[in-house]
Amino acid sequence: MGNRGSKQQVDGRRQSVRGKATATAVPKDTKKAYEALCERLKELSALGGISGLLGWDEMVMMPPGAANSRGAQKSALAGVMYDKKTDPTLGALLEALKKAPAGSLDAVAAAVVRDAAKDYIKATALPKELAQRIARLETDAYAAWVKAKQASDFSIFAPFLKEWVEVNREKARLIDPAAPPYDVLLDDYEKGLTSARLDEVFAQVREGLVPLIAAIKSRGAKLDDSWTHGEFDLEAQAALCKKIALDLGFDTEHGRLDVSVHPFTGGAHPTDVRMTTRFKKEDVMEGITGAIHETGHALYEQGRNLEYDGLPVNSALSMGVHESQSLLWERMVGLSRPFAVYLLPLLKERFPATFGAATAEQLYAAENTIREPSLIRVESDEVTYPLHIILRYELERGLMDGSVAVDDIPRLWNEKMQSYLGATPPSDAKGCLQDVHWSAGLFGYFPTYTLGAMYATQIYAAAAKDLPGLEDQIRAGDFAPLKSWLNAKIHKLGSLHASGDELMTAATGGPLDPAVFLTYLNTKYSELYKL
Amino acid sequence: MGNRGSKQQVDGRRQSVRGKATATAVPKDTKKAYEALCERLKELSALGGISGLLGWDEMVMMPPGAANSRGAQKSALAGVMYDKKTDPTLGALLEALKKAPAGSLDAVAAAVVRDAAKDYIKATALPKELAQRIARLETDAYAAWVKAKQASDFSIFAPFLKEWVEVNREKARLIDPAAPPYDVLLDDYEKGLTSARLDEVFAQVREGLVPLIAAIKSRGAKLDDSWTHGEFDLEAQAALCKKIALDLGFDTEHGRLDVSVHPFTGGAHPTDVRMTTRFKKEDVMEGITGAIHETGHALYEQGRNLEYDGLPVNSALSMGVHESQSLLWERMVGLSRPFAVYLLPLLKERFPATFGAATAEQLYAAENTIREPSLIRVESDEVTYPLHIILRYELERGLMDGSVAVDDIPRLWNEKMQSYLGATPPSDAKGCLQDVHWSAGLFGYFPTYTLGAMYATQIYAAAAKDLPGLEDQIRAGDFAPLKSWLNAKIHKLGSLHASGDELMTAATGGPLDPAVFLTYLNTKYSELYKL
Repeated sequence: MGNRGSKQQVDGRRQSVRGKATATAVPKDTKKAYEALCERLKELSALGGISGLLGWDEMVMMPPGAANSRGAQKSALAGVMYDKKTDPTLGALLEALKKAPAGSLDAVAAAVVRDAAKDYIKATALPKELAQRIARLETDAYAAWVKAKQASDFSIFAPFLKEWVEVNREKARLIDPAAPPYDVLLDDYEKGLTSARLDEVFAQVREGLVPLIAAIKSRGAKLDDSWTHGEFDLEAQAALCKKIALDLGFDTEHGRLDVSVHPFTGGAHPTDVRMTTRFKKEDVMEGITGAIHETGHALYEQGRNLEYDGLPVNSALSMGVHESQSLLWERMVGLSRPFAVYLLPLLKERFPATFGAATAEQLYAAENTIREPSLIRVESDEVTYPLHIILRYELERGLMDGSVAVDDIPRLWNEKMQSYLGATPPSDAKGCLQDVHWSAGLFGYFPTYTLGAMYATQIYAAAAKDLPGLEDQIRAGDFAPLKSWLNAKIHKLGSLHASGDELMTAATGGPLDPAVFLTYLNTKYSELYKL
Repeated sequence: MGNRGSKQQVDGRRQSVRGKATATAVPKDTKKAYEALCERLKELSALGGISGLLGWDEMVMMPPGAANSRGAQKSALAGVMYDKKTDPTLGALLEALKKAPAGSLDAVAAAVVRDAAKDYIKATALPKELAQRIARLETDAYAAWVKAKQASDFSIFAPFLKEWVEVNREKARLIDPAAPPYDVLLDDYEKGLTSARLDEVFAQVREGLVPLIAAIKSRGAKLDDSWTHGEFDLEAQAALCKKIALDLGFDTEHGRLDVSVHPFTGGAHPTDVRMTTRFKKEDVMEGITGAIHETGHALYEQGRNLEYDGLPVNSALSMGVHESQSLLWERMVGLSRPFAVYLLPLLKERFPATFGAATAEQLYAAENTIREPSLIRVESDEVTYPLHIILRYELERGLMDGSVAVDDIPRLWNEKMQSYLGATPPSDAKGCLQDVHWSAGLFGYFPTYTLGAMYATQIYAAAAKDLPGLEDQIRAGDFAPLKSWLNAKIHKLGSLHASGDELMTAATGGPLDPAVFLTYLNTKYSELYKL
């Protein structure tokens, strides 16, 4: 907006004069070169923070008629960031630092150079024509997916998925011709993970879960959660969820809590974390679960180490690790017996008609009800969810290595659903067209959901070993010891380690072990369902 | 923030790939050169919109602990914008377009080139050393002013004001060595105005107002507004002010209305205008007045012509014109008899204890009470306010041309207060240290407040002539005809004209005429105070 008459502008002008500060030459001295690199990375981080704020505002605050202007703003900022991310001087700095004498960079600096160098390669690898083709495809494929889903007709979407496969293969080849294409894409979401490792992990999970699900199904015993439904005042729900988020440790000095159509956690900086929740009149438990999930994401962000503020080493390690923090709080804490003891009095106080006569054990059972295996990923529970993910992983990995043809997707999808979950989708809309991800070309994204669930189990087990009074603390609503443990072992480390396995080794004593996850599910559900 | 696990990010990625789009050479063809210019200006406008959003968020939404990170974000964005505003290719484009054959640019394009060329000169005129000196002085002088005001001791602030005078003289000389230095500064806030013209205007206002104020004072008759005070529920006040803003024409499809510590209007774009209000428990009229004022600013922003979106010609013409739009609604409409007829039933309905027995005439009288001439500018009424401004103008103009010495400011301030308003401040804190503006080096800013008041009177008089039923419409709460008139005559024109006088000539038939303002005040207050 132009200048205007409000008196506020007087203060606003007190930060207006800036000069060019970034150097254009590469210093010979390693320390100076590293400082020059950090200056550029911090500038990019600050611009990225602005981008985060624009995204949050668009979801939570922006008036509906501002969509076009917001698009122009995001485009302008993306253009600025693209220019800075691909600046040849940044590349020259990174080349010089990669050749720095051994020992001249400490572990943090080495991690900064490692991740920044990878980002630079990814930012510069694509020729303009390919970048434009991808941008166009993002729009066109999304539109085709919407149409295909409405018509429940995969053939409308198939040509676009074929182009995504082609484009993604080409992109992967340009970034790293030596690695399997799927691994290159996977690295965007789960740093350092390979499909060979993921094959092993997911095979073990699949083999462990298919019989468990079949056993629960054949047992036939149902847990009752219908009594938790009713009519719950929205403001009372919001106040309760805020109390829970604050009890868990969300810091409103460095964050905000709002309501939005889809709950999410975003923001501009570890000191400015914006989480949102959503409430339904008839289901108080869904709002609470969502709030706990987002609080887990928010605590990870707020727990970052400000000593390395603005450097890549201080960002989230991966999407899987981020999801581990939301799922640790949502499932390992929020769906546990001790948490039911903490939660029940809060529910009784606010919603006595529904919860007045309940016991903590009844609440625990209701929270852990397994319904009929759902056809829809986002509606499924913690036992069946991983198989939805593994199915998608197997298909998208096959698309990338050529062993799966796009036209076979609907048939393969339905066969795998039947074999893993004992249910066949009645239509493409409820089958292979249900998720938006592939329409945006996101291959390698799905696995992070289940990696997060597994990391969460393993991290919680390590915390419980280190904190003998943990369950008593949770019962008493004292979550500070667990939060402090996570701050020290996970949050503060940011992106220092090269992979989730490395982080798990440092934090829990060993790499990701699916057996921990399977044992947790087997023990919990064998007991609940008396298998 | 780094990548994270929330599913929302899937959508967020659908706008990520951008390439460099701006050309680097200057096209020979005028049309192509103009298009290249517009592309750059629109990018700068989009980045400026982001800057506006950051400012709004900081005032209204940002958690308190995020101040440091927000500072880094603003600094990074300011650096980006500085680089783009001072890009030599932009300068070369402007040079080429200034030499374009007569008639090859239409009126809008000519105005775009005119204003963009001026901005470029201002952005590039200052050597780095001077820009850094100004940036440092903004911080140091503000700190000294705070200290001086607390101690009520001008001598603490005097050395910094001296440096501001020196720095501002140097800045003005670098931008335009041929113009009087004060005129160069004034142009930042009131495009196209000169101090010679302002001398004439303000002398006429001063000579007209001093006797009117003396007459009101000697008349001794007081209008009673104490009965409008009471205790008013804050939520009821907020709902009432929202209703009024919507009735006046504020468009929530393209804007938001929030509560903040200081009411202001900001935002990111004419389609994304964010206004705020503030309420006091004991004074409902203050909240209403503030809301009407900000609605006036907001309607000006929302009324801009999107055909010229992102070009300088579509920004506000000046701060004085912006203030004219807030004051037109606040004073010419909001403090009028017809508006009291519209407002009273709304007040009776919500606050019957206070307003149940009142008449519209009593409400009108209470709203227009003149208290003892206040020593403080921001607390004064529409009759005495201009003299506060004229006093500041005379002093800052004297500082710039050397006829006033910094050390004489407290004495001259107090003498002028006595001579214009018949009251002498008991201390520097309540005198020459009361306003923040000079600590930020803002010379030329103060006059825009009173220019706005005068423009408002003259614009309203022209509207009333064109809209014969205007007073009836206001009584009936139908503000659409006035808003449409302002849209067409003022808002849509943006910055097309070269000065406030030019705009006034186009919209009202003649340049700014202080006699219109004086007649309005004399008529209104002679009647109210039976002079």
